Amino acid sequence: MTARSRTALDPVLARIDAGLPAALERLMALLRIPSVSTDPAHAADCARAAEWLADDLRSIGFDAAPRPTPGHPMVVGHAGSGARHLLFYGHYDVQPVDPPELWDRDPFDPAIEETPAGPVIRARGASDDKGQLMTFLEAARAWVAVHGALPARVTVFLEGEEESGSPSLLPFLRDNAAELRADLALICDTGLFQDRTPAIVTMLRGLLGEEVTIRGPARDLHSGMYGGAAVNPIRVLARILGNLHDTDGRVTIPGFYEGVDDLPETLRAQWRALGFDHTAFLGAVGLSVPAGEAGRTPLEMLWSRPTAEVNGIRGGYAGPGFKTVLPAEATAKVSFRLVGRQDPLAIRAAFRDWVRAQLPADCSAVFEDHGASPAGHMNIDDPAFEAARQALSEEWGVPAAYIGCGGSIPVAGAFRSELGMDAMLIGFARDDDRIHSPNEKYDLESFHRGIRSWARILAALAL
Amino acid sequence: MTARSRTALDPVLARIDAGLPAALERLMALLRIPSVSTDPAHAADCARAAEWLADDLRSIGFDAAPRPTPGHPMVVGHAGSGARHLLFYGHYDVQPVDPPELWDRDPFDPAIEETPAGPVIRARGASDDKGQLMTFLEAARAWVAVHGALPARVTVFLEGEEESGSPSLLPFLRDNAAELRADLALICDTGLFQDRTPAIVTMLRGLLGEEVTIRGPARDLHSGMYGGAAVNPIRVLARILGNLHDTDGRVTIPGFYEGVDDLPETLRAQWRALGFDHTAFLGAVGLSVPAGEAGRTPLEMLWSRPTAEVNGIRGGYAGPGFKTVLPAEATAKVSFRLVGRQDPLAIRAAFRDWVRAQLPADCSAVFEDHGASPAGHMNIDDPAFEAARQALSEEWGVPAAYIGCGGSIPVAGAFRSELGMDAMLIGFARDDDRIHSPNEKYDLESFHRGIRSWARILAALAL
Repeated sequence: MTARSRTALDPVLARIDAGLPAALERLMALLRIPSVSTDPAHAADCARAAEWLADDLRSIGFDAAPRPTPGHPMVVGHAGSGARHLLFYGHYDVQPVDPPELWDRDPFDPAIEETPAGPVIRARGASDDKGQLMTFLEAARAWVAVHGALPARVTVFLEGEEESGSPSLLPFLRDNAAELRADLALICDTGLFQDRTPAIVTMLRGLLGEEVTIRGPARDLHSGMYGGAAVNPIRVLARILGNLHDTDGRVTIPGFYEGVDDLPETLRAQWRALGFDHTAFLGAVGLSVPAGEAGRTPLEMLWSRPTAEVNGIRGGYAGPGFKTVLPAEATAKVSFRLVGRQDPLAIRAAFRDWVRAQLPADCSAVFEDHGASPAGHMNIDDPAFEAARQALSEEWGVPAAYIGCGGSIPVAGAFRSELGMDAMLIGFARDDDRIHSPNEKYDLESFHRGIRSWARILAALAL
Repeated sequence: MTARSRTALDPVLARIDAGLPAALERLMALLRIPSVSTDPAHAADCARAAEWLADDLRSIGFDAAPRPTPGHPMVVGHAGSGARHLLFYGHYDVQPVDPPELWDRDPFDPAIEETPAGPVIRARGASDDKGQLMTFLEAARAWVAVHGALPARVTVFLEGEEESGSPSLLPFLRDNAAELRADLALICDTGLFQDRTPAIVTMLRGLLGEEVTIRGPARDLHSGMYGGAAVNPIRVLARILGNLHDTDGRVTIPGFYEGVDDLPETLRAQWRALGFDHTAFLGAVGLSVPAGEAGRTPLEMLWSRPTAEVNGIRGGYAGPGFKTVLPAEATAKVSFRLVGRQDPLAIRAAFRDWVRAQLPADCSAVFEDHGASPAGHMNIDDPAFEAARQALSEEWGVPAAYIGCGGSIPVAGAFRSELGMDAMLIGFARDDDRIHSPNEKYDLESFHRGIRSWARILAALAL
């Protein structure tokens, strides 16, 4: 960093430190809006969150507005100038709160809680992704407050359907390609490595979502009257799902591993050097043994190997007490994390064929599509990556790392395919943030240092 | 039947025919009470149904009252005199209505509906068991109205927990054995054979109910962050349930078939002579192929073979949309229909051991007991059976049959073990009554001829 940019940055960082209480109040206001995108009952809340963000962006000097889609609105805002155009992405929608009884407080009544590990912001969306996206907005606000302008040309692009398969994303990118195409995307939806090391994600798994319903009898039956003679869709579904993996933990769908390469030895060595503590990682959630493919390390399982998981199942009577019913149907939601050159659409077709081939007489299968995105790999030869990595290292006091990510951030693939730009995935979540779970939180340190990190990265990437 | 008893019976039958509209109104009143015993939210409704029945019995001249239990009340009433003491049993509780959206009308707003097959009474409990138990009460009412008294000594005993495992039944029978012990029990909770032939059930399957919860991670996890490395309880549960049967449809739990004898050739011949139309039986519910053990006839599967079925399953997120969660636990409700000398408690222990033996590292299983009863076999050498069979044959105009029953009526076993008496199982339900399913109904003909049948049986059994 040059002396000139250091001179410009220092007052911005000071402003961020002084303005933290006000920044927290803004985040709390956003967290109070229950913008659960997958539940149609919360559509108005999603629209309200988009309005709130557009208002906030305008207060920073962005030319911003909610932008309608067939689903929940996007928010787009423009500000700043410069030779390099940066597109910042986050999402304002959140996961459902089920099961609500496992929350220690109302998930949409955020609060700062003191914990042995330091203060945290507790609420649905605190970490995923409202807290994270606000780190960038607060960094931009501080730059504008101190210098009257951003140090670079910035477009902010916020989505409201990330937690529900992003059905409007690709059409919106296509329809607004000229406006949204930038030199580089910045995505804030990932985490620190092992809770302490700042990181830039350069490998992302893809995601394929499928819902399968097995149908048998024309109606629910009494198991006394029909049990033994009538086919039971729960049993059929359980048998099929039980066949999804072999005894070595490998997925049994024919062709599933096409396009999955073994990890290059150089990358394997780099990952080994990260010193990932898989005992601590699993122990934090009450587990001790990596449950994936035999013969793979946990980091390989998470970053470079594909998976098949059942994310939900229902059938028959599962409420209090007992009901001796043979149900007419049973349903499971199945997702696949994809790596390398695995083709999501080919795997969808192979999964459906594989299920149908296992159906007994009198049963049928109905499928519902819940989205498909391939794996992603970033080009870290772009010098912007090294500049951002240096900025992160300075803020956190330890060298930032290039890592993989077990999650799927389909927008990174969409930016590549629709707008021809790479994405830099930087985030400040911690492994214990309980995202998608009850009692989600975001560390106050993540929020504060996250804002400071973006202020530094904006300076480092300004051309 | 003697001329004297014919003279006494005819005006009772005439009274029943003339009183049918009033009898229907009483049934409707009882059906309007949502006495779902398995759901604690309906406890007051169960108490209300018991009060209603005690009032109704008193209006017929019974010395009757609701009798408290730790669960829902029993109703006990006494009337009549004679050398033979008959105990009539029915249950006033009903199954839950799930899924409510599949009902064409409010399940607790009963109505008479015209159908191509004749008029039906549509409501939850219309057939199982409110409509059936009221056939006996209406027959008793007609006898008392015409002759001022019942032709026999009768105790009416109505339960409110039959659909939720009858937890209070055994203690109540023990505590009130002297009051309830009779020469013979009459149970009205079964059906006509093939929709048209009156029948007395002489073989009943037993029932064992188990709920198993597989626990893995300490909390719900994000499948992007943990997928591939963390164990998934839904997958573990599906694999275990998928192993419950072998490819021939036999249950794989060690020792499960101990006490299961092959059908004697004489009984096999009798059942063959019944001309059971399994194509019509399965076709009525959209099926074509018997799904049970290979090499068995459908009647064998239903009456003389044990089963293992999954009646409910839940885990993860199964609502609208998709949630990429790895849940902390998954649960299934499993029931076993038992025959011959199978020991319910031995099978419970074997099932639990069998599940535990299949648990991978980091998983545990928690079990909940949902009741256990052995199979039952009646002694049809008692001449009362032949007398009742003749009475049924006269009412329906076809020879009544001795049959088996795939269902489990634990009270019959309890009467044998606690009170030392046999039970005569006679009912008028039809296969398409949709008991335990949406749009349950009871044919008006079943109700009307059912009342007349009991009037005849009371005359035939009077000593």
